Amino acid sequence: MKISKIDLSKAQEDLAQLIYNTPVLSSSAINAMVGAEIYFKCENFQKTGSFKARGASHALLKLSVVEKTKGVATHSSGNHGQALAWAAQRLGIKCWVVMPENSPAVKIAAVRGYGAEVHLCPSNLPAREAGLKAVQDKTGAVFIPPYNHHNIIIGQSTAAAELLAEQPNLDAIFAPVGGGGLLAGTALAAHYFSPQTKVYAGEPAGADDAYRSFYSGTLVEEHEPNTIADGLRTTLGSINFPIIQQHVNAIYSCAEEEIIAAMRLIYERLKIVIEPSCAVPFACLIKNADAFHGQKVGIILSGGNVDLGKLPF
Amino acid sequence: MKISKIDLSKAQEDLAQLIYNTPVLSSSAINAMVGAEIYFKCENFQKTGSFKARGASHALLKLSVVEKTKGVATHSSGNHGQALAWAAQRLGIKCWVVMPENSPAVKIAAVRGYGAEVHLCPSNLPAREAGLKAVQDKTGAVFIPPYNHHNIIIGQSTAAAELLAEQPNLDAIFAPVGGGGLLAGTALAAHYFSPQTKVYAGEPAGADDAYRSFYSGTLVEEHEPNTIADGLRTTLGSINFPIIQQHVNAIYSCAEEEIIAAMRLIYERLKIVIEPSCAVPFACLIKNADAFHGQKVGIILSGGNVDLGKLPF
Repeated sequence: MKISKIDLSKAQEDLAQLIYNTPVLSSSAINAMVGAEIYFKCENFQKTGSFKARGASHALLKLSVVEKTKGVATHSSGNHGQALAWAAQRLGIKCWVVMPENSPAVKIAAVRGYGAEVHLCPSNLPAREAGLKAVQDKTGAVFIPPYNHHNIIIGQSTAAAELLAEQPNLDAIFAPVGGGGLLAGTALAAHYFSPQTKVYAGEPAGADDAYRSFYSGTLVEEHEPNTIADGLRTTLGSINFPIIQQHVNAIYSCAEEEIIAAMRLIYERLKIVIEPSCAVPFACLIKNADAFHGQKVGIILSGGNVDLGKLPF
Repeated sequence: MKISKIDLSKAQEDLAQLIYNTPVLSSSAINAMVGAEIYFKCENFQKTGSFKARGASHALLKLSVVEKTKGVATHSSGNHGQALAWAAQRLGIKCWVVMPENSPAVKIAAVRGYGAEVHLCPSNLPAREAGLKAVQDKTGAVFIPPYNHHNIIIGQSTAAAELLAEQPNLDAIFAPVGGGGLLAGTALAAHYFSPQTKVYAGEPAGADDAYRSFYSGTLVEEHEPNTIADGLRTTLGSINFPIIQQHVNAIYSCAEEEIIAAMRLIYERLKIVIEPSCAVPFACLIKNADAFHGQKVGIILSGGNVDLGKLPF
């Protein structure tokens, strides 16, 4: 399936009633520091606190009537589980979420708060997949994966599409890359709506499978992530990878202390709460500031679901 | 001097080019929790990170040409010093700020960054006043006080005026009270632009001079503040007090742990960075939620200048 411009436009139209067109913030102090004109698209203000509400909503809207009746399921320790539970509740669809038993209580409560049924499982991928299969076998629920899925990618594209509508002359857009849903969506949005805008990804050096895949030309399988950016510990998706190869200009990586410094700068100057993953593209922009001197740069801030008791500063 | 409706309207017009019309945020989770429809006016996004930019700018705009040539001075350990330095730089006016020598280095750097001349002094009120007098004797600079001043009050009124323009049918507005500049301005804005809107103040129990003054009818002098809400440790101003007596419906007080819980809730749900003083009116609303059930309530979030290394959670 090739994703078309019409797919993206239609998604934006369909999602308008469900999700926020989140604000775009700037800081003259940050601009002076970096030497560029930066526009932060604030998905931390999105429903459920991250861009994941876009992809989850879009995937559910695209289900058939029969599938909607059966309900949906996923396994998640993070933002996707919350987003799917929220979107399912909004659309009147049953939802099951398999969560690792060591998930923070607040996250389990949030998923339950959105009306989903939570199944706890041991904290490893085989157990999560087995838990999901058990739920599906019992209920017939449709699996909605977090990123390796066309309708998820199309949903995530709407963040960049909104940013480009508000700031049409961006020279560049930065997005984080974990599984690649947001990055692939961002790249497609720029490709279709603003072809002169170049797309860059930021990735932690401690979880650089997308970087290695991108520059080797082969999807890297072995991946032992070690980074504070918990949203980016996932492995790049097979559907996402070719889109990224085709439409992304470069992937940058950055060190943990650069992520933390960029995160702090956003708290201090933009006065907003973001999760560490959010700070990665900004850290990469700061690190490569010379290459973007005087340019208009958009950055997708992906979410704000952070444990406030464990801020790294 | 009686402050008129025209003074307030004119200030809004004059300030429009200098300051931000800051966003108003809501959270359905917070609304469900409190049982009211709450609109947060986000002055943490204001220039220099607090509403003080409004009053300082307005006071400077009202100076005579001769006064503007002489320059301005103040003593401040906090937001007013930064706001005055910033506004003076914007308007091309010289500025001196006397700061206690134990002020955080980052605050001294911020004031200097806005082009003001910083004079350090010992950390007590007589030393600050002596430092200010020395600057004035030497330079002829005009003293711009932080709150006990008509033009400061008029400037601060513009935050509530903007909120009432965006949400015209508020049943109540909450503002914090320290020196009383923001509260008096808020009360006047409601009085002139939305007389059916009742105005409430929140104050830490550990710095409750406004509470005691309001309910005794006499401006309380003795005041030994002990609260995390550093912006509210000041003593209520003599010009502010009668305005507050006339136009404020009630002053509530709250405990330190209630301030911290309210602060955390704002970080978690609104995803924004605020200083502890900001959380005080919200803490008081939560505490008195029954009295506001089902109402539309505005809250002025006063600023976001917080030491991120010392968050109370």
